[in-house]
Formats: sequence, C-alpha cells, structure tokens
Amino acid sequence: MEKRTRDPEKTRAHILEVAFTEIYQRGFQGVSINDIIAKTEVSKGAFFHYFATKNDLGYALVDEVIKQMVLDRWIKPLSAHKNPVKGIIKNFKKIIDTFPEKSVKYGCPLNNLIQEMAPVDPVFRDKLYEALEVWISETEKYLRKAQIEGYLKKGTNTRQLAEFIVMVEEGSFGLAKSMQNKKMFTSFYNSLNDYLSTLSN
Amino acid sequence: MEKRTRDPEKTRAHILEVAFTEIYQRGFQGVSINDIIAKTEVSKGAFFHYFATKNDLGYALVDEVIKQMVLDRWIKPLSAHKNPVKGIIKNFKKIIDTFPEKSVKYGCPLNNLIQEMAPVDPVFRDKLYEALEVWISETEKYLRKAQIEGYLKKGTNTRQLAEFIVMVEEGSFGLAKSMQNKKMFTSFYNSLNDYLSTLSN
Repeated sequence: MEKRTRDPEKTRAHILEVAFTEIYQRGFQGVSINDIIAKTEVSKGAFFHYFATKNDLGYALVDEVIKQMVLDRWIKPLSAHKNPVKGIIKNFKKIIDTFPEKSVKYGCPLNNLIQEMAPVDPVFRDKLYEALEVWISETEKYLRKAQIEGYLKKGTNTRQLAEFIVMVEEGSFGLAKSMQNKKMFTSFYNSLNDYLSTLSN
Repeated sequence: MEKRTRDPEKTRAHILEVAFTEIYQRGFQGVSINDIIAKTEVSKGAFFHYFATKNDLGYALVDEVIKQMVLDRWIKPLSAHKNPVKGIIKNFKKIIDTFPEKSVKYGCPLNNLIQEMAPVDPVFRDKLYEALEVWISETEKYLRKAQIEGYLKKGTNTRQLAEFIVMVEEGSFGLAKSMQNKKMFTSFYNSLNDYLSTLSN
C-alpha cells in the first residue's frame, strides 16, 4: 500500500484491473465502490483521488481498458494473416475456441456495458459507441486491404461488412450467455464463414 | 381496484403488463416490487397473492409475455408470405422500420433479460433460453418449408441458419442500443439480406 501510493499510475491501473473483473461478473450497477475498495486494499480517500465518482471509474474502464482489449483481441492478430478476410474469420474461431467455458455466461465486457449502461447514461453510451467504432473502423481497414489485394470482391461495401462482422461477433457472445455451453458459437461461426466465402475471390 | 380483485386473471395480466414496461426501460434489477405496485394500484398483499417473489414475476414475464411477443412479432407474420425466406427478411425490415426511434436505446426485451439475468440466475437463464429456442425452432420450420418448396438451396443447414438469423436479429437490437439512431439497423439488414440471397434459388 505504502509502495502503491508512491506509484500513482500503478495504483490507478490496479484499481481499474480489479474493477474490470468485478464489473464483468456482476454488472456495473451490481458492484459498489466499497466492493472495489475492499478488493484493492486502497483507502477510500485514495480511491476518490483517482476517480471522483463511480461513473468516472466506469468511463475510464471503457476508454482505457476495454478499448485496448478490443484492439488486442480482435484487431492486432489480423496483421499476421496474408488474406485479411481469412484472418478475421480465423481470429473469431480462435477467440471462440480459447474462450473459457465457465466465462460463456458472462459474455463480452463491451457488449455487457452497452446493454446495461447505454440506455441509462448518455456519457457511457457515447464512450461505448466510440469503442465499438474503433473496432468497426479497424476491421474495415483490413477489409479494404483485402479488397485492394484482390481477396474480397470489388463491389463489397466494406463499411457495411465491417459493421455486420462486429455485430455478429458481439451478437454471438450476447446470445451465448443464455446457453449452457459453447456449442452454438460454432454454428454462428459456420454461418459467418459461409457468408464471407461468398464475398471472397 | 374492487373490480380488479373480482377478476383475478385480469389483475394478474395488468401487473405483468406494468412490470413489462418498467423492466424494459430500467432493467429487472433496477425495478423494485414497490415501483410496480405503485404503478398498478394493487395492494402489496394482492401482489404477493399473484407472485410470491420478484423472481416469480420475472419468470412469468418470460414464460407468458415475452415468449408470446416473440411469436407475435417474429413468427406469425411469416405465414403471410409465399416465399418464407423473403418473409423472414421482409418481416425483419418491417420491424426495424416501425420500431420507434426513442425505443432504440432500450433494445429488445428478451435480449435485455438475457444480458442481465442469465449470468446471475440459472432459472432465468433456462426460461430465457426456452423463449429463444421457440424463436429459433419456429424460424427453422419456415426455412424447411422454403427448402421443400424450392426457395432455399438444398444443401443449407436449416437449424444453423435459423440460429444465425435469430442471433443477427437480436445482435442488431443489442448493438443499436449504443447508437443515437436507427441508421446502422439498415446496414445490418442489408448484410443479412445479401447473405440470404446467396442461399436462395
């Protein structure tokens, strides 16, 4: 603790990390500041030094943690593939395959916050949309690359396709929350794979 | 009130109707039994006569109100179309077009409850999955009909396609919650329409 207060950036990151896990499993409104403080062992005074309100913590979670997770999980791996369309579908498969069975019921952290907070707080909604927009526009960059390099059919509307791909990825995690297992994930993947193959050269 | 207590079925339906609107706009956990009682003008004693717990009210909401809404909105209109594949896509378009702009931020009642309650209550999860399963299997019936009548390609896996269609419909309503308007709905519709046309004869 003594050490942490001397390294404010580390303390802040630690609070965000703890908050992420708690909120992912119990929802933003289901977790109190006291719950987070209890798990971080940071004093209440210190907590409020970093985040003036619970909402400020939530906003930082979207801007700093979740946006980065989207890039790390959904975008960065794409650069390793020669054919970006194949990269997108293979990366989706890899995420499904490696996603822990016990986490299926918790879904996707970004989708969860959209469902819970977008209707009740316009600042949350704007920040969540921003994270989604990064995901969509970065996906589109790879689709345009695919089009230029001849992997994706010329007439394809890349923006529309990027929006659809991201919606399918989020929608898959959303519906899977009602299921006992990951089986239906494979079904969603198969259909997306089938659609993308009709758009590929 | 006097009249209502003499017509228990009507009172019960009235409580469910009020609860539906409150929960749709504020979430299951965001609404208290007292909130619902205040809006129904039913006494607390009468309320507990119909629903022993708040969860029982929630379960009845899924089993009786939401499952019926799924059938009324997504399945029944399909019988009016000669080509069931065209029926599915036209019905999706009609739902998007007539969906009130101010309700976009509230999303779909079934999807909302899945996101909020499936991870925290296994009874809820099972009931929500049941409603989803009705939607998927009724959609599949129309896809099989389309296949038999030659509208849908023979090799198409109708169960997989039904799962995908329902996921796209729910995923569209889910993501739209983060947006200010309905524009992206049309984008999702265009892609689904495009995919279905590749599977059609």
